[in-house]
Amino acid sequence: MSKRKYAIGVDFGTESGRAVLVDVSNGKEIATAVYPYKNRVIDEFLPGTRIRLEPDWALQDPEDYIRTFKRPIPAVLKQTKIDPADVIGVGIDFTACTMLPVKADGTPLCMLPEYRQHPHAWVKLWKHHAAQPEAVRINATARQMGEKWLDRYGGKISSEWFFSKTLQILDEAPEIYAAADRLLEAADWVVWQLTGEEKRNSCTAGYKAMWSKREGFPSNEYFAALAPRLARVVDEKMSRKIDPLGERAGGLTAQAARWTGLKPGTAVAIANVDAHVSVPAATVMEPGRMVMIMGTSICHMVLSTDEHLVPGICGYVEDGIIPGFFGYEAGQSGVGDIFAWFVDHAVPPEYHAAAKKRKMDLHKLLESEAAKLKPGESGLLALDWWNGNRSVLVDVDLTGMLLGATLATKAPEIYRALIEATAFGTRVIVEAFEKNGVAVNEFVTCGGLPEKNKLLMQIYADVTGRELKVTASTQTPALGSAMFGAVAAGRAAGGYDSIFEATPRMARLKKESFKPILENQKVYDRLYAEFVRLYDYFGRGENNVMKTLKRVKEETMRKA
Amino acid sequence: MSKRKYAIGVDFGTESGRAVLVDVSNGKEIATAVYPYKNRVIDEFLPGTRIRLEPDWALQDPEDYIRTFKRPIPAVLKQTKIDPADVIGVGIDFTACTMLPVKADGTPLCMLPEYRQHPHAWVKLWKHHAAQPEAVRINATARQMGEKWLDRYGGKISSEWFFSKTLQILDEAPEIYAAADRLLEAADWVVWQLTGEEKRNSCTAGYKAMWSKREGFPSNEYFAALAPRLARVVDEKMSRKIDPLGERAGGLTAQAARWTGLKPGTAVAIANVDAHVSVPAATVMEPGRMVMIMGTSICHMVLSTDEHLVPGICGYVEDGIIPGFFGYEAGQSGVGDIFAWFVDHAVPPEYHAAAKKRKMDLHKLLESEAAKLKPGESGLLALDWWNGNRSVLVDVDLTGMLLGATLATKAPEIYRALIEATAFGTRVIVEAFEKNGVAVNEFVTCGGLPEKNKLLMQIYADVTGRELKVTASTQTPALGSAMFGAVAAGRAAGGYDSIFEATPRMARLKKESFKPILENQKVYDRLYAEFVRLYDYFGRGENNVMKTLKRVKEETMRKA
Repeated sequence: MSKRKYAIGVDFGTESGRAVLVDVSNGKEIATAVYPYKNRVIDEFLPGTRIRLEPDWALQDPEDYIRTFKRPIPAVLKQTKIDPADVIGVGIDFTACTMLPVKADGTPLCMLPEYRQHPHAWVKLWKHHAAQPEAVRINATARQMGEKWLDRYGGKISSEWFFSKTLQILDEAPEIYAAADRLLEAADWVVWQLTGEEKRNSCTAGYKAMWSKREGFPSNEYFAALAPRLARVVDEKMSRKIDPLGERAGGLTAQAARWTGLKPGTAVAIANVDAHVSVPAATVMEPGRMVMIMGTSICHMVLSTDEHLVPGICGYVEDGIIPGFFGYEAGQSGVGDIFAWFVDHAVPPEYHAAAKKRKMDLHKLLESEAAKLKPGESGLLALDWWNGNRSVLVDVDLTGMLLGATLATKAPEIYRALIEATAFGTRVIVEAFEKNGVAVNEFVTCGGLPEKNKLLMQIYADVTGRELKVTASTQTPALGSAMFGAVAAGRAAGGYDSIFEATPRMARLKKESFKPILENQKVYDRLYAEFVRLYDYFGRGENNVMKTLKRVKEETMRKA
Repeated sequence: MSKRKYAIGVDFGTESGRAVLVDVSNGKEIATAVYPYKNRVIDEFLPGTRIRLEPDWALQDPEDYIRTFKRPIPAVLKQTKIDPADVIGVGIDFTACTMLPVKADGTPLCMLPEYRQHPHAWVKLWKHHAAQPEAVRINATARQMGEKWLDRYGGKISSEWFFSKTLQILDEAPEIYAAADRLLEAADWVVWQLTGEEKRNSCTAGYKAMWSKREGFPSNEYFAALAPRLARVVDEKMSRKIDPLGERAGGLTAQAARWTGLKPGTAVAIANVDAHVSVPAATVMEPGRMVMIMGTSICHMVLSTDEHLVPGICGYVEDGIIPGFFGYEAGQSGVGDIFAWFVDHAVPPEYHAAAKKRKMDLHKLLESEAAKLKPGESGLLALDWWNGNRSVLVDVDLTGMLLGATLATKAPEIYRALIEATAFGTRVIVEAFEKNGVAVNEFVTCGGLPEKNKLLMQIYADVTGRELKVTASTQTPALGSAMFGAVAAGRAAGGYDSIFEATPRMARLKKESFKPILENQKVYDRLYAEFVRLYDYFGRGENNVMKTLKRVKEETMRKA
């Protein structure tokens, strides 16, 4: 087995799917190809119709997933001229919870003519936010019934999650619910399309569907209390058999081999989630090293050998990230999104013109201007709630705040204050973990922001007092998926027998890291104290002005 | 005396001086001419030198005042070809406190070669803010000594006022203090230049120099406590004879007649302040009708027959506006300035481009977009403290706040929220007056904003629940000065014997007014309750985060 072997990671994102061909021996990314989804995010009209979606809906087209197999995978093979026989495994990762109703043979309802014009027959994307009333019911019922599992999710589950979306289908389209033989994550659905076998992964089951290795799903009694028809949802439309990460889901079918140009029987890994699969790709296989995926939002993941209740985190799942550990997840719902909002909606023309003149991205220009300021110099302080607060307040109705403005305040100062606000938000999360027994000694970062914004990285180091390392790969989820593909293949086939074997060989960090600067830390400690006071004041019920304003707004809009 | 008679009002502003020729019989403004000051606001270098001023300094050149007599007055005579003999009176109004040190003959120290290079020899403009340490001392000493007069000024005097500036001269340039035979308001100095007589007006003495008709100036003991050399400042460098508004200061000297082209002996009125002289020009001669001068900031003035202590107002002066009444003054330190900041520093290019395309002022465009929103629809709430808070918190260290932002927030929404914030700020002031016995039944508005922004006017009506009327004149201070010029001339010369006679004949309102809309009022009552809660929380010491941020900023800058 001295010949070089390869694995392919397929990363299903929000706007596109990508395939990355990776050298199994060293994790080197040999080739990449991207397929921008034809129907992208469906949030206005069902494709090819004038059927308008309600606000907060976000759907996808499962055919875009199949096209991701049919185009990027052959493309990387073609680019590299590698013998398909040397590709030993395929792994996939997906956004989550992104779920769909299908027939018993796996056919999505939205691909059947009789359901094609029904919005509920389509894939509900992770950012479909229309199941908020259902989430409220799920939480209230769980609290009333004293459901223990609620504690694993920081005391509250989200409208984005599996049973919120399922219950919305049942509430609003009982005929679709009835027609669905299976309800499942798109992650598991694409693996099914590759292997012909329906296998359900422990990551989405644990983080998005209230399942745990020790206790399984919530009881039928609980589901019955939500809606009588939901009582047997797990047995009727799901499965109690959940497969751990790192397993082989099956081999490529003949059809999938034709789609991809790979050999039939090529090993396919149990599906994974984009954020979680990034953890081993960020070299992390042990407690204390928090992985931050930093982009439009931030996902924080950290391992622990023990079980700890941490209020306000997204959840923890045993074996949910790396076998043998409790994997903890928290998040900030707006980070890069806030900076993008600022650049689009609040930066005056002179900066746009200067960026154009210097042939710079406007973010880069603002970063370089903001980098000239010292911590505390702007006199500004913000709460980073433009998109609500995920951890630790779990409250979508919170809104952004900027304080300290004067007639001399300039755009780069606000830009920096917004970066600082997101860093303070991360520090709150880190402190919540540490206070409850989950250590966070350093960060390993990946995603778009660490590449783009060195000022931001330094500010995070200064605010949190911790070193930030950066993954060498810029395609961490796809690399992680390829690693799991190599593990699915196994050592005998030229891969690895476990993720613990694969990680030291395939995952790497950059040499450059960001270390806290003591002088800056001192100033930020003072500002952080002020941040926390405002965070608690506006976020924990002492002054509910943000909710009052939202209510007034809703009433105003209803009357109009 | 059937022949038509005229009066000239001269309004000395921050950037320019203007003369308006007015028909005494009906207040019609026949002609206007403006002189933009050659040296404008001196805040970087002394004219013709490389002598740099310290931060927060703002000076003017008294020769610019003389040039205002020499150019605009002859210009309006020339434009109209009116016989100078038919111009029966001249009145002037000035910014305040704008003060200067002069020799016994009236020569400003800055016009003497030996002092010309000394910043303290020049005119300190109202917005010279470098005397803050002196204001702090004046207040602290007054509180320690239990000085009663402090109550008349809402409990605190400002760094802008006469003795703050005087004490700064003594502190920093005792030689200038010694060389000054007289210290006086520029308002009184220009009248002196016209008439050859030093007369001091009751308006600036009362509002800016702690004088009152019943009690005079603070005691020599108090001044001695501030600084021994200041003990006899009133007797040595000022005057205890204060002349009431509406009096004749004197007649034009031969020299002033040559400057202006008017007849020697033409009546000149006792000097007035721009804001206060606007009150009769806004038809107001009775309690209950608050005059608002709305521009970069707002000045609120209202009359009462009685004396009331109103915490946080700028002050009240008996006969300070209209003889026979206590004149109350309050203010908001940032209004139009905040909108200008927003337009300059936080509006993205698309709105600039749209305004250009539609050949509209950007404010107009934002106003028209913001007018499409209903009250409460933006979900935003702001505190209008970009330039600190004058009334009722009297705190320059407070800063602006915007709350409620989401990823969907757009510039016109913020623009509207800023307008609403200033309206809420006015409502706080009105409620402080009413709570303490000073009625405010309606507003009469003048200044730049009422002309420019109808949305703003409607929002003020809706927020305060009171009708807003608008003066017919767009040059209210100059009209008011002309009215006092006609009163200085007297009925026998074709003018009037009192401002009560002049006002109904010379001052007029527009027909259009702004009445509260009940439906909007209801929404704004809810938002106002939230505004007040934040106003008190951040403004009255419960959370001093704004001051902490300023302190951190100052320390950061000092270290740099």
